[in-house]
Amino acid sequence: MPIAYPEVLELAGEEERLVWTDQRAMLYALSIGLGSDPLDARELPFVYENGLKAVPTLATVLTLPMTLLARTGVNFARVVHGEQGLVLHRPMPPEGEATAVTRVAAVYDKGADKGAVLILQSELTEPSGQPLATLRSSIFARADGGFGGPPGEDETRPVPDRAPDQSLEFATRPDQALLYRLNGDRNPLHADPAFARMLGFPRPILHGLCTYGIACRAVLQACADFDPARIRSVQARFSAPVFPGETVTVDLWREGVEVAFQARVKDREAVVIRNGRSELR
Amino acid sequence: MPIAYPEVLELAGEEERLVWTDQRAMLYALSIGLGSDPLDARELPFVYENGLKAVPTLATVLTLPMTLLARTGVNFARVVHGEQGLVLHRPMPPEGEATAVTRVAAVYDKGADKGAVLILQSELTEPSGQPLATLRSSIFARADGGFGGPPGEDETRPVPDRAPDQSLEFATRPDQALLYRLNGDRNPLHADPAFARMLGFPRPILHGLCTYGIACRAVLQACADFDPARIRSVQARFSAPVFPGETVTVDLWREGVEVAFQARVKDREAVVIRNGRSELR
Repeated sequence: MPIAYPEVLELAGEEERLVWTDQRAMLYALSIGLGSDPLDARELPFVYENGLKAVPTLATVLTLPMTLLARTGVNFARVVHGEQGLVLHRPMPPEGEATAVTRVAAVYDKGADKGAVLILQSELTEPSGQPLATLRSSIFARADGGFGGPPGEDETRPVPDRAPDQSLEFATRPDQALLYRLNGDRNPLHADPAFARMLGFPRPILHGLCTYGIACRAVLQACADFDPARIRSVQARFSAPVFPGETVTVDLWREGVEVAFQARVKDREAVVIRNGRSELR
Repeated sequence: MPIAYPEVLELAGEEERLVWTDQRAMLYALSIGLGSDPLDARELPFVYENGLKAVPTLATVLTLPMTLLARTGVNFARVVHGEQGLVLHRPMPPEGEATAVTRVAAVYDKGADKGAVLILQSELTEPSGQPLATLRSSIFARADGGFGGPPGEDETRPVPDRAPDQSLEFATRPDQALLYRLNGDRNPLHADPAFARMLGFPRPILHGLCTYGIACRAVLQACADFDPARIRSVQARFSAPVFPGETVTVDLWREGVEVAFQARVKDREAVVIRNGRSELR
């Protein structure tokens, strides 16, 4: 079923009620590798309920835009997560409640041979009515181009053309995707070897959003002194998969209140996140 | 407040309703190290919801006897988990419901200088009314001996006096206790370095029940072909702590339908589980 354009832009999900516990915040932090040195007093507050702090990107696992994506009519077997944006209007509470409403913010046509790009945007609102976070997922639907929509513009910016100011390395674990999927995204691509092979991967891959969380952790550590309230936004483009067990190198460039970043798997000379950008408070 | 004997034997907890999801079963399995080789087809069914199997010792995290222990009047700062028993009347469902009732099954007096031993027994019953599992926790209350009760008898049996038939090694991770505590036992001894030092430990220790789960996993792998339905019971005595990051060696002896086992940390020449015993079906 081809994308019905521009009617697809009218699609919006039901208001969803989100409730998260400190257990969920700690599981998320562990699943992106925080606490791997449990004696590190800077990391412990993300994985221990005594004075718990939430990683800002926790917001990305509280609501999944997949239900709405299913209603757009795209071929699910051919979609990949292209980009992810997150704006924190206030710091993420380590436990709490919110409502989420997801809508189709834009749809771009890259041509019949290339595919379509759907921008799904979720607004998270605190029970007080205050805006909490805006999530923006860019979904690349490779089988759904050529519906006659606008081509769209690149929403991301390249990293500076100079050596990074700092590079941090994070070893992922072989079981990292198995743990990460307990946050809610149970796509079998991240667990089932036969399913992964069917999609053309030699083995299950890590969730792009897990690498995104690792990048956010790098910004927290290198530029925000582990204070999550200082991170206002995180934007990234997924350019290649990470295999669980690989070491991810995050390169960072400070540019005033912004941090540009990219993530690489050095051993394969693969850039896995491009055009990363985070605003600090 | 000294133990009121024999009145303490009348204590019983309220009926507790347990509900567990497949997410909880997978988290438990990951927290005892299953899935560390995510391409191992024998382990995947414990950490992936497609054909999910529950580790039998999942039962040990579904109800915690601590609420009842608090009502016995023992000095909480001086209690340690001495032994754990588990009988599966039927295989643990990977998700499900049950009720649990915990009572004080026995109290032994080891003398004023040694302490008291409290046996807390939980009966898990399926909604159908069928018995599911019996948990038996032996709590050593070091400050509460000399109340005038019987000395009790050793409920465990030593392992055979010959070389083990098989020994399996399991590397624990530095963050293993942080993950394991998300199963529900949030004693700060397993996370907080300052709290651990206050209790005389150089750093946080792994939960005894995590090591117990690792031992059950060893029996599953070595003696039950990864079929959890074949394990009828698991009994063990905790004799020394494991520090997260250490490698645990489980020694196994086959004796007909029984498996005797112990667990060691080779590097420290420490036996951490003694008198282990598992019955197979």
